[in-house]
Amino acid sequence: METTEFLPNASNSITVRLRITNRPGMLAKVTATIGELGGNIGAIDIVHAQEDVLIRDITINTRSDQHARDIVDKVSTLDAIEVVNVSDRTFLLHLGGKLEVNSKVPIKTRDQLSMAYTPGVARVCESIRDDPENAFTLTVKSNTVAVVTDGTAVLGLGDIGPGASLPVMEGKAQLFKEFADVDAFPIGLDTTDVDEIVDTVERIAPVFGGINLEDISAPRCFEIEDQLKERLDIPVFHDDQHGTAVVTVAAFLNALKLVEKEPSNLKVVMVGVGAAGTAVTRMLQQLGVENIIGVDRQGAVTPDRDDLSPAKQHYAQHTNPMRESGSVHDVMEGADVFIGLSAPGVIGVEDLKKMKRDPIVFAMANPEPEIRPEVAYDHVKVMATGRSDYPNQINNVLCFPGIFKGALACRASDINDAMKLDAARAIAQTIEEHSLTPDYIVPSVFDQRVVERVSEAVQDAATRTGVARKYV
Amino acid sequence: METTEFLPNASNSITVRLRITNRPGMLAKVTATIGELGGNIGAIDIVHAQEDVLIRDITINTRSDQHARDIVDKVSTLDAIEVVNVSDRTFLLHLGGKLEVNSKVPIKTRDQLSMAYTPGVARVCESIRDDPENAFTLTVKSNTVAVVTDGTAVLGLGDIGPGASLPVMEGKAQLFKEFADVDAFPIGLDTTDVDEIVDTVERIAPVFGGINLEDISAPRCFEIEDQLKERLDIPVFHDDQHGTAVVTVAAFLNALKLVEKEPSNLKVVMVGVGAAGTAVTRMLQQLGVENIIGVDRQGAVTPDRDDLSPAKQHYAQHTNPMRESGSVHDVMEGADVFIGLSAPGVIGVEDLKKMKRDPIVFAMANPEPEIRPEVAYDHVKVMATGRSDYPNQINNVLCFPGIFKGALACRASDINDAMKLDAARAIAQTIEEHSLTPDYIVPSVFDQRVVERVSEAVQDAATRTGVARKYV
Repeated sequence: METTEFLPNASNSITVRLRITNRPGMLAKVTATIGELGGNIGAIDIVHAQEDVLIRDITINTRSDQHARDIVDKVSTLDAIEVVNVSDRTFLLHLGGKLEVNSKVPIKTRDQLSMAYTPGVARVCESIRDDPENAFTLTVKSNTVAVVTDGTAVLGLGDIGPGASLPVMEGKAQLFKEFADVDAFPIGLDTTDVDEIVDTVERIAPVFGGINLEDISAPRCFEIEDQLKERLDIPVFHDDQHGTAVVTVAAFLNALKLVEKEPSNLKVVMVGVGAAGTAVTRMLQQLGVENIIGVDRQGAVTPDRDDLSPAKQHYAQHTNPMRESGSVHDVMEGADVFIGLSAPGVIGVEDLKKMKRDPIVFAMANPEPEIRPEVAYDHVKVMATGRSDYPNQINNVLCFPGIFKGALACRASDINDAMKLDAARAIAQTIEEHSLTPDYIVPSVFDQRVVERVSEAVQDAATRTGVARKYV
Repeated sequence: METTEFLPNASNSITVRLRITNRPGMLAKVTATIGELGGNIGAIDIVHAQEDVLIRDITINTRSDQHARDIVDKVSTLDAIEVVNVSDRTFLLHLGGKLEVNSKVPIKTRDQLSMAYTPGVARVCESIRDDPENAFTLTVKSNTVAVVTDGTAVLGLGDIGPGASLPVMEGKAQLFKEFADVDAFPIGLDTTDVDEIVDTVERIAPVFGGINLEDISAPRCFEIEDQLKERLDIPVFHDDQHGTAVVTVAAFLNALKLVEKEPSNLKVVMVGVGAAGTAVTRMLQQLGVENIIGVDRQGAVTPDRDDLSPAKQHYAQHTNPMRESGSVHDVMEGADVFIGLSAPGVIGVEDLKKMKRDPIVFAMANPEPEIRPEVAYDHVKVMATGRSDYPNQINNVLCFPGIFKGALACRASDINDAMKLDAARAIAQTIEEHSLTPDYIVPSVFDQRVVERVSEAVQDAATRTGVARKYV
């Protein structure tokens, strides 16, 4: 199986400051060297020009740290060119953190101080003391979400701890604000104990209107979410489970339209039955999909296996009605849909050939999918991944900003199944039927219609199911 | 003892929308009525003008809720004038909360997304995983403080709970940002148990560079601060104790210059020996004040009393070397300094007459001081209060923004005694000796020099005492 290298991109971009002797052809020599090594030049700026020497900043997208180092090493060997400095643009952007907490009003005068703080603030406190619901209108609780992690399952990095997870949580908070104007604050918890996490989140909940759980490893994430949902009267939402499920189901709904199949007749192979896979499975069942076969590292998940965790035993009892067993390659026979939330290279072209007509393949392992799109395209009808450099990126950013915006707007006490399903439908319907193609089943993360539509759908569903506490 | 009423102010301001028949003299009738009742008109705006009727917004500073209602009631009885709407400007300002969490960089393009979030963010996480200290440069930990309360001792309101305390905590966070460009986030804890508070704050600490404890009742506040200081490697600072002490000591240092007395020879009567009084006492002792007599509701605090809490027993053993007993009126005999952090009307003119030459009186009970300045002025040399409508306001805002700014800048592991003392000296020295008068011993809270000077003094002291982890 031959695959190409991923493209250079901004996430691995560097700015190289060069001191170049000022004579013809020097810049061309530099750019040619960078091009030969596969770097993409994004910008060339002159920092300082003297008669005999030019200082230039060259911004280069690369494929990896190592690729960047190779380019710099090669450029530094060039004659009459000196590398003055190399800066990593991603690290520069992170200096000092990516969030700030601002006052919505200036406090420059005595009058402003006396209204925002003492003595005026006392009357506002008394109003909330007398009616605690007023916290939802008179404090940041109205629009603020905690992004809570214990740092145990961060991106593809695993258990890196709460401190090292902060850049992701800050990024999430940035997306909440930029995409949905929801204020979010990152909380990295210095414990991995289920009870301690639940107790801690419960105790810090008063200032928050919702809790977004993030990157907490399975199976603890299930119990933590269940307990918090029970204890708190604000929405609790584990994005790795439900955000992934909502966007996957949105893509699934649109893919089904293209292949003209019904949920009830499908065979779905679900590889990876951790937090996300389990949530996707549950939503697909709510849509009427009956034949879902879960697969983990040991093969198909069936009640006959004796190596299953309690969570997987439960999964086995509610899936795989035909009791199919064996490897992923065995159960791909006759499948309509493959959904991967697992690891690179789990399936090959031979597996695609076993599928029914118009195969649907969602290969969402990150950063390297279960099968590369360029390998699969000839054998499938619809292909989606988690990556931004292929069509049909299944990205949680399509879900969590809008789902919390809607939940906060109607002061929902919960984010329930109806709200999630309607969020998925709203995402799917952002693409009009006449625009739907195998390359366009998921809207762009920058499609500004998505947040509003998801938010409205969520508010409607919350009102319908009785969890809305404010009628908009 | 005769006192005037406090002045109308913005904290109790209302905007009244009136529908006024358009004929000469109508507005004068309205403003005269408001003036007769003691309201101060701040602004008069025309919202809408027709031939026969004008809609006007009149903004009025009042003394209290009741005062505002009286004014509106009276205006509504006027002929040819209709009250359309009354809005409370302080409540309007609080709608939706007073803070927002913003992204420092826009996320409008794929490149921005790939650097702030996945995939670029993974390299930043790995860098912190490999060296946890990097969280201080690559995350908001570098500049973010938690404003933590359990809502048990909020302003003069007492135990109103974490939800009702939020407007104060948000106000505090606003001041951190507006005065010192420090990001602060309010955390209201849904527990009053010492161990639970300590455990919770410890678990949420990874994202914070400092912890500002706020409005936690004594004696729990002492134990909570002590335990957190022991467990955390970031500064923990209970503002009600130490912020008050730092600013009080700053005022004290300048007052001493005016009366030309030395700390070691003074007799100081300290009324109110809760969290703030205890901290003030300790700082005064560090300055060399030996004779401090604490007074609580039962009178002078001496080791002979058998009704003392453990905290007050400790206080008694370290103060009042002459073992003076009796009421506050008894121990005022021969005092140089009175410091009140207690309740209105605790002392009278007769008590001031018992003091030594050039009495210094800090009457900081809020909102109503231990003795009113207009009553005291003829009998004292220097008078200060906690109020903004008299000279010499002793306000924590002069301390906490600068002290945390300095602590964060040098990555201090603690805010220790040396840092607090030097902060007090820096505040005092903001007023040049030649500007010092009995009416000007404390700089204005809007004096922009204060934050920088406090921050620099704190960094110097932190470096000198070995708690700075970054050398600026």
